[in-house]
Amino acid sequence: MYVGADYYPEHWNRERWPIDAGLMKKAGFNVVRLAEFAWVNMEPQEGSYDFELFDEALSVLHANGISAIMCTPTAVMPAWLASKYPEALAMKGDGTRHVWGVRKDNCYCCDDYNRLSEAVTRAMAEHFADVPNVIGWQTDNEFGAPTCMCDKCLAQFQAWLKDKYGSLDSLNAAWGTHFWGHRIKEWSEIPFPADSNAHNPSACLDWKRFHSWLVVEFQRDQVKILRRMCPKHFITHNFMGLFSGLDYYDLASDLDFVSWDNYPVWGKPGIRYDASLGADVMRGLKGKNFWIMEQTAGPSGWGTFGRNPRPGEIRSITYQQLAHGSDGQVWFRWRTCTAGREQYWHGLLGHDGEPLRRYREAAQTASELHKLAPHLAGTKVRAEIAIIYDYDSIWSLEIQPGYPENSVVKAIGRYYGALFRSGVAADIVPPGTDLSKYRLVLAPAFHVVPDAVADSLDEYVKSGGILLTDCRFAVKDENNLCHERTLPGKLSDTFGIRIEEYESVDGGAAYHLSYGAEGKEFTVEGYTDWVTAMDAESMGKFYDGHLSSFAPVTRHGVGKGVAWYCGVVVTEEEFYDNLVRDLLREAGIEPVADLPNGVEATMREGEVGRFLFIVNHLDMAASVSLPCQGTELLTDKHVAGEISLAGFGVAVVRVEG
Amino acid sequence: MYVGADYYPEHWNRERWPIDAGLMKKAGFNVVRLAEFAWVNMEPQEGSYDFELFDEALSVLHANGISAIMCTPTAVMPAWLASKYPEALAMKGDGTRHVWGVRKDNCYCCDDYNRLSEAVTRAMAEHFADVPNVIGWQTDNEFGAPTCMCDKCLAQFQAWLKDKYGSLDSLNAAWGTHFWGHRIKEWSEIPFPADSNAHNPSACLDWKRFHSWLVVEFQRDQVKILRRMCPKHFITHNFMGLFSGLDYYDLASDLDFVSWDNYPVWGKPGIRYDASLGADVMRGLKGKNFWIMEQTAGPSGWGTFGRNPRPGEIRSITYQQLAHGSDGQVWFRWRTCTAGREQYWHGLLGHDGEPLRRYREAAQTASELHKLAPHLAGTKVRAEIAIIYDYDSIWSLEIQPGYPENSVVKAIGRYYGALFRSGVAADIVPPGTDLSKYRLVLAPAFHVVPDAVADSLDEYVKSGGILLTDCRFAVKDENNLCHERTLPGKLSDTFGIRIEEYESVDGGAAYHLSYGAEGKEFTVEGYTDWVTAMDAESMGKFYDGHLSSFAPVTRHGVGKGVAWYCGVVVTEEEFYDNLVRDLLREAGIEPVADLPNGVEATMREGEVGRFLFIVNHLDMAASVSLPCQGTELLTDKHVAGEISLAGFGVAVVRVEG
Amino acid sequence: MYVGADYYPEHWNRERWPIDAGLMKKAGFNVVRLAEFAWVNMEPQEGSYDFELFDEALSVLHANGISAIMCTPTAVMPAWLASKYPEALAMKGDGTRHVWGVRKDNCYCCDDYNRLSEAVTRAMAEHFADVPNVIGWQTDNEFGAPTCMCDKCLAQFQAWLKDKYGSLDSLNAAWGTHFWGHRIKEWSEIPFPADSNAHNPSACLDWKRFHSWLVVEFQRDQVKILRRMCPKHFITHNFMGLFSGLDYYDLASDLDFVSWDNYPVWGKPGIRYDASLGADVMRGLKGKNFWIMEQTAGPSGWGTFGRNPRPGEIRSITYQQLAHGSDGQVWFRWRTCTAGREQYWHGLLGHDGEPLRRYREAAQTASELHKLAPHLAGTKVRAEIAIIYDYDSIWSLEIQPGYPENSVVKAIGRYYGALFRSGVAADIVPPGTDLSKYRLVLAPAFHVVPDAVADSLDEYVKSGGILLTDCRFAVKDENNLCHERTLPGKLSDTFGIRIEEYESVDGGAAYHLSYGAEGKEFTVEGYTDWVTAMDAESMGKFYDGHLSSFAPVTRHGVGKGVAWYCGVVVTEEEFYDNLVRDLLREAGIEPVADLPNGVEATMREGEVGRFLFIVNHLDMAASVSLPCQGTELLTDKHVAGEISLAGFGVAVVRVEG
Repeated sequence: MYVGADYYPEHWNRERWPIDAGLMKKAGFNVVRLAEFAWVNMEPQEGSYDFELFDEALSVLHANGISAIMCTPTAVMPAWLASKYPEALAMKGDGTRHVWGVRKDNCYCCDDYNRLSEAVTRAMAEHFADVPNVIGWQTDNEFGAPTCMCDKCLAQFQAWLKDKYGSLDSLNAAWGTHFWGHRIKEWSEIPFPADSNAHNPSACLDWKRFHSWLVVEFQRDQVKILRRMCPKHFITHNFMGLFSGLDYYDLASDLDFVSWDNYPVWGKPGIRYDASLGADVMRGLKGKNFWIMEQTAGPSGWGTFGRNPRPGEIRSITYQQLAHGSDGQVWFRWRTCTAGREQYWHGLLGHDGEPLRRYREAAQTASELHKLAPHLAGTKVRAEIAIIYDYDSIWSLEIQPGYPENSVVKAIGRYYGALFRSGVAADIVPPGTDLSKYRLVLAPAFHVVPDAVADSLDEYVKSGGILLTDCRFAVKDENNLCHERTLPGKLSDTFGIRIEEYESVDGGAAYHLSYGAEGKEFTVEGYTDWVTAMDAESMGKFYDGHLSSFAPVTRHGVGKGVAWYCGVVVTEEEFYDNLVRDLLREAGIEPVADLPNGVEATMREGEVGRFLFIVNHLDMAASVSLPCQGTELLTDKHVAGEISLAGFGVAVVRVEG
Repeated sequence: MYVGADYYPEHWNRERWPIDAGLMKKAGFNVVRLAEFAWVNMEPQEGSYDFELFDEALSVLHANGISAIMCTPTAVMPAWLASKYPEALAMKGDGTRHVWGVRKDNCYCCDDYNRLSEAVTRAMAEHFADVPNVIGWQTDNEFGAPTCMCDKCLAQFQAWLKDKYGSLDSLNAAWGTHFWGHRIKEWSEIPFPADSNAHNPSACLDWKRFHSWLVVEFQRDQVKILRRMCPKHFITHNFMGLFSGLDYYDLASDLDFVSWDNYPVWGKPGIRYDASLGADVMRGLKGKNFWIMEQTAGPSGWGTFGRNPRPGEIRSITYQQLAHGSDGQVWFRWRTCTAGREQYWHGLLGHDGEPLRRYREAAQTASELHKLAPHLAGTKVRAEIAIIYDYDSIWSLEIQPGYPENSVVKAIGRYYGALFRSGVAADIVPPGTDLSKYRLVLAPAFHVVPDAVADSLDEYVKSGGILLTDCRFAVKDENNLCHERTLPGKLSDTFGIRIEEYESVDGGAAYHLSYGAEGKEFTVEGYTDWVTAMDAESMGKFYDGHLSSFAPVTRHGVGKGVAWYCGVVVTEEEFYDNLVRDLLREAGIEPVADLPNGVEATMREGEVGRFLFIVNHLDMAASVSLPCQGTELLTDKHVAGEISLAGFGVAVVRVEG
Repeated sequence: MYVGADYYPEHWNRERWPIDAGLMKKAGFNVVRLAEFAWVNMEPQEGSYDFELFDEALSVLHANGISAIMCTPTAVMPAWLASKYPEALAMKGDGTRHVWGVRKDNCYCCDDYNRLSEAVTRAMAEHFADVPNVIGWQTDNEFGAPTCMCDKCLAQFQAWLKDKYGSLDSLNAAWGTHFWGHRIKEWSEIPFPADSNAHNPSACLDWKRFHSWLVVEFQRDQVKILRRMCPKHFITHNFMGLFSGLDYYDLASDLDFVSWDNYPVWGKPGIRYDASLGADVMRGLKGKNFWIMEQTAGPSGWGTFGRNPRPGEIRSITYQQLAHGSDGQVWFRWRTCTAGREQYWHGLLGHDGEPLRRYREAAQTASELHKLAPHLAGTKVRAEIAIIYDYDSIWSLEIQPGYPENSVVKAIGRYYGALFRSGVAADIVPPGTDLSKYRLVLAPAFHVVPDAVADSLDEYVKSGGILLTDCRFAVKDENNLCHERTLPGKLSDTFGIRIEEYESVDGGAAYHLSYGAEGKEFTVEGYTDWVTAMDAESMGKFYDGHLSSFAPVTRHGVGKGVAWYCGVVVTEEEFYDNLVRDLLREAGIEPVADLPNGVEATMREGEVGRFLFIVNHLDMAASVSLPCQGTELLTDKHVAGEISLAGFGVAVVRVEG
């Protein structure tokens, strides 16, 4: 397994390089990422390349048995580029361009920028193709920003729309420009829908798609060059987990595998599931394992920084990712830089360059990972549950949340959190995925649902699947127009319900309901549908008078399957725990372990066996009842019945039988 | 009575039109509003008009007995207009122009825009003048935005000032440009006072007046055309209640009657008086009854929407307006649009086009309104109380609130809320109104008081009136300069007080006082005058040491009347209930009923009789003691002593005797 | 002693001038400040000067025994200047220029502006040099804003950098442009580091220094002219206390003495130390006594105003400043202006021009000051404690606070507040000050510490000094780069500690510790170092598991002195009271009195004797135990043992023995 750190030799004197490489070797590191942001080092003036610095660094690393992933350096343009081609800098809404000196500030429609990006990629590819310890590439860095508003981008947007729609009649229909008298008569009349709170929502959605397409195309140009010139190398990109600025499925499609940057140490320590959800989203992009390309090594931040991972936590964070399908582990960064905007984005080593606690903990972890690697080869998380994660729905709700604070990630999180607490794994999948292999499908906040997708969900249920959707399901079609149907639209019969009315529950208002046999009272804040159970069974009860004839949750057997609908946004986690418990029971899904508060468990499986990962996310000892027995691989001890973990402790059990 | 909906035939297939018209007819609707925002439909290219769509729609409506109000469509410029005349789009403070694709974004000084606005108005007027079911016009839509900062507007502002002041000496005196050395020597030196937190307050006030004038002039151009070409039609505009961006008295002056857009369903349901105050402000603009041109039909909002009117509430909202003088009732909108920014501004019909609960409730209400109409013809709310509502004071306090969160609407609301809870009606009047017919005049936050107006208030009191003013009364003259007098200035003798000092009570500070025989303690937060009662009676007592010699409220008999002054901003509603109770007693004004919490009552009177409206604003039954007896017109039952209302229930009692 | 008011004769009719001067004389006033913002009065058109207004005003004042400080009027450019030279107005980040009509809006690199500033200064200097009652000058007004972003300023910034660094290699090293590949190859490539949250922190610091330098140079041009032409006059500027936009040490260096503007009446009344700290900072700028050039006379504010000084408080505010070294007292302003943006920045007289309570209180105070003046001549606050106050550290933490809400003023305030409550005085000094005369040195948030300064602190301790530093000490060097050392860096041995790790304590998290013999528990919120006490004594104990081996506070005897380190930010004031108590004990420093809550005490000393100032900041009587006896100079009574003060009462005791 590759384990290492993000390394910036250009930040330090050459005398330091052998010391760093020696410390890496001693820690068991065998890979670094190099050359991110080093455009000016490699092309100090236009067209003149100089790779001597990285050649020597690679040579020092090679001597210590360390391989390297090279980066295309296009996330920061050199000063000379900004100075010579001012239009390379993206334009803001106020008509001024970004001021050079930060990063990720280029216009993706600037011909000069794109030409120079390709040129430096080609020069790097040519130079590093056969360097022995170069093993792969990372494109750019954390694609996403900025959204340029220059005239070239506008013209490109208009051209993209023409290509997509063919005719203005099609575009006018797709955007519903009959509203507010916005009919477009010439392609050149189309503006940037700059105000996502006021412009046409269909146009806003297309603008997000266009921006995503621009970036994907930009990467594609680099990938093509790298594939041709470096056929032996893998190509990846460092994604940002739950970042929603791009369609990550598209961005991942050109890559060999996904890697991502994981920083779960802001705010209070605790049992947050975000890093697990992030990992599952990453695994879902290509339906395969991933790398951590930047893993938390210390307090992080630009102007201010967050908390320090506590003793044991650098390790536990790593195991959390491993448990969710990580196959490569790179800490960010090797040593904390003493200069620039990320002086406080702390590395394994501090500003002092001393190998202290964080280094030692990473070294211990690396050594364990090497021990585990042979066992884990080819293993994957196996999930019986799929959660639909859809960028069109994400974007549509960003443009019009419908009710305050609504978002796809929040909605998914309500159910995902319950799964996390239960010890049950899920795959995150795009719409259109073949769902037949899953026993349960959750589609929270699945808002943009074209008819064909609705049909496939119907078929999934009728063929025996268990499906849950919830508030604002299928309100929109692929053009971000509302369906002309009573909700839940095409699936009204599938769910056995009608939703004739609905409302936000805002401004301090709240409704109340009971759910489940216990009759416990829960609070509705944010939103509620007024669901009429036609053929469905009502699974709860509203206390509020005007809602008393409606159902907060419904269950409807149809064909061989069951369709659940949850029409409320509930404040208490326990509501979702109970609802998910009922869904798991319906689907016949068992947790991998019975978990105390703060402990997470996930199973990786492969031809070689099944491996239960247990991670304690709290700074106190915990004890977990095992439904299985086997060998704990870190201690080589046989475990059965119960296993004890120290604070931030982990265990990897090779399950017997 | 006209009852109907805002209808957009251009949003739907023509096959749907007869269905819609049939449903309207079945609901008892007899009017729609048409063609708002339909400029591009009627003038698809410059100078080429096409009214075929509306001709056919009008014909379908006519066949169902439905009349129409046509709109001048100038609130949204067509794409071709923005494209051909970029200067038609207003300029923002950062020097960029609004991006086309929203609405209400035109520069009011753009000659081309104004020319095209007149042309389309003329073409429509000519075309629709004699269409049998067209009965009137709405100008534009919700006048207000934007404030353009282009050079043409600046030149127009300078010209407007030159016209107003005649000489720079006059302007320099009126603006007090001796402060900060801001003397103006050339008209062209005058800037936009763009920062209302930092520029000269006198200039800021004139800029608000100028912007209001620009819009009023813009409407006037349209009104002139319509008057000349459509002499049989009425002309109105859809106002926005408590919106303060324009001088609504001016805007109303060119119209036949006022109509307004009423959306009281955000946040918690409750007993808020805002929609009643809005109605009274609207009635006060021309001193006559008004229409509701856009009435709440469902949850409303662009990106997010609010709560759904509960069963009964669509009806109760309508009766609330009727009780305050509404003579026409148009719901917004007929059917929820599936496209564009207002997809979630719900109509009587949903996206599905089905006639469901909200439709049925509107139909019931329409049928009742037709039954009531003959009774109510010619009736008006009769009030013995006037509240002065003054745009100069509103604007002056927007520019300099004096104390945090201060505004005219908030200040009026404190007293209006107490009247609302008491069941006592008030007229909202502009300064300069003949007050002699009122027994009590309230002038809260009456901040800009020219000497002549002060004199008239003095005369009103001495002739027997009861007057109450409060904090920050008469601080400013008509130029937004402070009077060079000890407060309350010219009326110091009238009130029998001197206010030598005053202060904000901010940052978590609070003072305490008692008021009334009960000796109950109240809290001062926000502001307090240090009022010395000279000849006045002190009506309360401060508990705080440094205020102990001052009076929170004073009462002073002078001539045949009494002048009250309230020098405190108090947190508790009960304080204002008590103060208003004392004022009503002083004025000898009786409530129309003894009201339980959440129920409102208002009387409409005319030659035909007196009609008591009772509206339950809560979702629970209530019982009201009647001081009268009569026939409840909706049930045709005789009522006396007490009347019971269901949740959101209403009653209209024709009072006997 | 000079006592008076800021006077604007140009705001009032000339008939009023003798009335004002008479009232001033009656109040015991002997000085006014004149002509601030009066550029347009004195130069109504370019090059044409007219001083007649001020000549007559000076003459009226002279007849009443009142002297005048004249202002260079360059804080507001005349309208003609902005109109003729649009580039005189500073450019904002969005590329538009400030809109004329406020103040302090000029570009400091505009040649025309600088030429006209010098010309009007020269004309004034020439005209007023020998006017008998002119005694001195104030430059401009409250230097600070704005930061212009025009091309001329950018070119000047690049030139300033070239002058500072000599070569681009030096600049690249100083800015650490190896980070993010930001190496600069041409001076012209350097941008404004406009986004202080994203641009290079070293560049951001230089940009703040450059802006400060620009302003200091601008003042220097005026000072040179005044020195040459008005050799008999003093020159000062009205500083703004804790304002951090400029290096006040530099700005003060060209002046005869510092004066400042003191407005401590926003929010709740209370025992806040800010005005005392502000005074000490002002005294520290030149290490000598200062004037109050604008003293609180009433509620203050632009759009909203704050609270009114209560009876007695105008006087107590004045004595607070006197106690800290004020030698001149000028109230702002004489009379509240009825026009312009500062209508609510209330003067001693209100809008009415009547001499009421605030006038009377100022008159009483003036009369007392004249009585005290002979005693106080030549006296100064004598402090045994120095607090290091460093603009580089202030700015560096503004650019990167490290942990949320961190700032130098907040950090100093924690200790200063404890000193204030203890009755112990401190000098505020720049880094590099000879500290040998101080028994205790506090260096809170002393963040930017070049090696030479660290060495001098080490030497100070070893020579017998007591030193305390705290969190984030010496993280940065003079280029805003992080030192490549384990914290506390060069002083690790001095403090006997190592800080290998640290973290923010944010997002609702908190740690807990005990400090002192009492074992009381305190709360850590914001930040904590993980301090390993090597040779140092640990002075407290963490309760939290992962911190249990670390020390919250350490004490280390070294050489003849002791070095304390506080690695925590604690919520409770009492923690700092206890810590400061221990430091005072260590240093052998005694308070000047034993103070009840809300009372402040300071000693001024000189050859003529020692004077104890006692000021009651609360609106209730208090009693103070005196460690001395003497004559209370305002009452001429002998006091010993105990002295009683009324609410807002003051005492000045000439200490015997």
